[in-house]
Amino acid sequence: MKTRAAVAFEAKKPLEIVELDLEGPKQGEVLVEIMATGICHTDAYTLDGLDSEGLFPSVLGHEGAGVVREVGAGVTSVKPGDHVIPLYTPECRQCKSCLSGKTNLCTAIRATQGKGLMPDGTSRLSYKGQPIFHYMGCSTFSNFTVLPEIAVAKIREDAPFKTACYCGCGVTTGVGAVVNTAKVEPGANVVVFGLGGIGLNVIQGAKLVGADKIIGVDLNEEKKAWGEKFGMTHFVNPKTIDGDIVAHLVELTGGGADYTFDCTGNTMVMRQALEACHRGWGVSVVIGVAEAGKEISTRPFQLVTGRVWKGSAFGGARGRTDTPKIVDWYMDGKIQIDPMITHTLSLEEINKGFDLMHEGKSIRSVVVY
Amino acid sequence: MKTRAAVAFEAKKPLEIVELDLEGPKQGEVLVEIMATGICHTDAYTLDGLDSEGLFPSVLGHEGAGVVREVGAGVTSVKPGDHVIPLYTPECRQCKSCLSGKTNLCTAIRATQGKGLMPDGTSRLSYKGQPIFHYMGCSTFSNFTVLPEIAVAKIREDAPFKTACYCGCGVTTGVGAVVNTAKVEPGANVVVFGLGGIGLNVIQGAKLVGADKIIGVDLNEEKKAWGEKFGMTHFVNPKTIDGDIVAHLVELTGGGADYTFDCTGNTMVMRQALEACHRGWGVSVVIGVAEAGKEISTRPFQLVTGRVWKGSAFGGARGRTDTPKIVDWYMDGKIQIDPMITHTLSLEEINKGFDLMHEGKSIRSVVVY
Repeated sequence: MKTRAAVAFEAKKPLEIVELDLEGPKQGEVLVEIMATGICHTDAYTLDGLDSEGLFPSVLGHEGAGVVREVGAGVTSVKPGDHVIPLYTPECRQCKSCLSGKTNLCTAIRATQGKGLMPDGTSRLSYKGQPIFHYMGCSTFSNFTVLPEIAVAKIREDAPFKTACYCGCGVTTGVGAVVNTAKVEPGANVVVFGLGGIGLNVIQGAKLVGADKIIGVDLNEEKKAWGEKFGMTHFVNPKTIDGDIVAHLVELTGGGADYTFDCTGNTMVMRQALEACHRGWGVSVVIGVAEAGKEISTRPFQLVTGRVWKGSAFGGARGRTDTPKIVDWYMDGKIQIDPMITHTLSLEEINKGFDLMHEGKSIRSVVVY
Repeated sequence: MKTRAAVAFEAKKPLEIVELDLEGPKQGEVLVEIMATGICHTDAYTLDGLDSEGLFPSVLGHEGAGVVREVGAGVTSVKPGDHVIPLYTPECRQCKSCLSGKTNLCTAIRATQGKGLMPDGTSRLSYKGQPIFHYMGCSTFSNFTVLPEIAVAKIREDAPFKTACYCGCGVTTGVGAVVNTAKVEPGANVVVFGLGGIGLNVIQGAKLVGADKIIGVDLNEEKKAWGEKFGMTHFVNPKTIDGDIVAHLVELTGGGADYTFDCTGNTMVMRQALEACHRGWGVSVVIGVAEAGKEISTRPFQLVTGRVWKGSAFGGARGRTDTPKIVDWYMDGKIQIDPMITHTLSLEEINKGFDLMHEGKSIRSVVVY
């Protein structure tokens, strides 16, 4: 079949809207009509050539929502008509990682996914006879895409695609880091570094679980209003305080935060986030993806005196099990998504979405097919 | 009263055995006759002048066991005749840290303890009219010492002092790191870096909780036999393997260790310990105390993909609550201590104990009064 898609033919070039050939789903695969997709920093990171493992030509996009249109042989968990979210972190429920009960990082199809291919080692996408790589196992910048069955989360049908798609990455990453990775408890004091889309979702996750102080840290004063919209109780701009940001936060939290979250990707900030934790029990969660080659450092004394350094990928959410719950929470009004969708674009306007992101003008731009 | 003690009059000099004046216990304090004390690397660290906060003249020693001989006003939890272990990590059960239920790092008397003084800001020890500093709130290199009530753990009376004293630091630090900090579960794979006294106690802690592979890593081939004595199942000498130690350990554990423990104090080893952890859930615990100024580093990717970096002080054990349990486990035969006590000395021979340690000839030397 044919599908309209935005193709990244090479790094550092705008996406091109073309018509691709799409092979139907093979055994264990499903064909999904993508109805909406967010544009995420990770897409830009790859398009800008910063990801040394980025593959071209490819169809980017990993934050979508759509409808199953066809299923391959052996598919039992979804059927045509089901509403789904594609998962860049699949959940096979059979590999060592899934069965550990300790991580969401399913390894069933990791090797082929990293190579831009389906689990059988081939691509379903092609342009003029030449294969086009899949991206993060999703390729949601295509109106139709083929996904492994284990890489789709079935969601409720009354959830709007335009907002539910954000649960395919940003919302789940932020809210999940609070709920699944840090397991923040009611009454905890939380500090969130970086109030982009992830940071705002961490804030609303902290509000959801009943945190006390929810402190947002950002160099951009305009983020104060954004943070407050989602439950932030205190805003700190490191540029406008006297002295050290860590000491300031330790003071503000009465000894250090119970939980801190780095949503900046800056390794110096990651260190501050750890050191702003309370002695004895403070947990710092790295969410941001750092530049290649950058390292985090601290004195081991920080750990020996009880601080914990950990990280979170896709919010620690098991793709098929937990993502639908995040959608439920949104539909039940426990978390908000609508105000975060600052721009709605057509596929033809997708490059504008990247521009808005680079210019810091959007929280989330969504392409609606 | 008078007490015989080994005094550190200045750094880098042998201890001197002298008779000190000891004031009796004030309100909330107890007088303890120390019956035995271990000599720990931390004592040597201070005596060698490596601890920038080390105070002189002082009575070192923090790994003792003895008998309460007198109690000050208001003391209710112990009485004369009770057998106790002095605690450098007290447990007041009233401060924010104790009440958090998340840490053993009681802060009730931290400020004065760090200054070598009792909680009222004075010393009970003096020599020829000059005050002598307490050390780590314990000063077990004195036959009699005064301690805050919250800094003594009451233990069973049938436990021999000569071995029970090791629970005042080394045993609890190692076993506790497994049981309290890492919470290793049966069937887990464990890697222990550094097979000194702490490492051996980590090994027997891992055996106690039913770990599968218990891998010891040490540059000294002689440590193999020591490790095996306490439950080590595999020994790795980084000098005798081909290639990278991390890759070797990941291979040996089928993907990485569930838990790793650094008992070396070497920050490069701490990094290896983290990176030898299993993707998704491996937890690395820093126990060793690093040289001043040294830092640990890694790529944040290690954390984002699910590894956790934490630390442990006094094995995460709440002093008064958990230390007696460690003694019970020893008396019940769940853990061993006797084979670790390689040398028994008189107080007059205490400097020999330091020499043995520096020469790597002892696991633990104990002074018996």
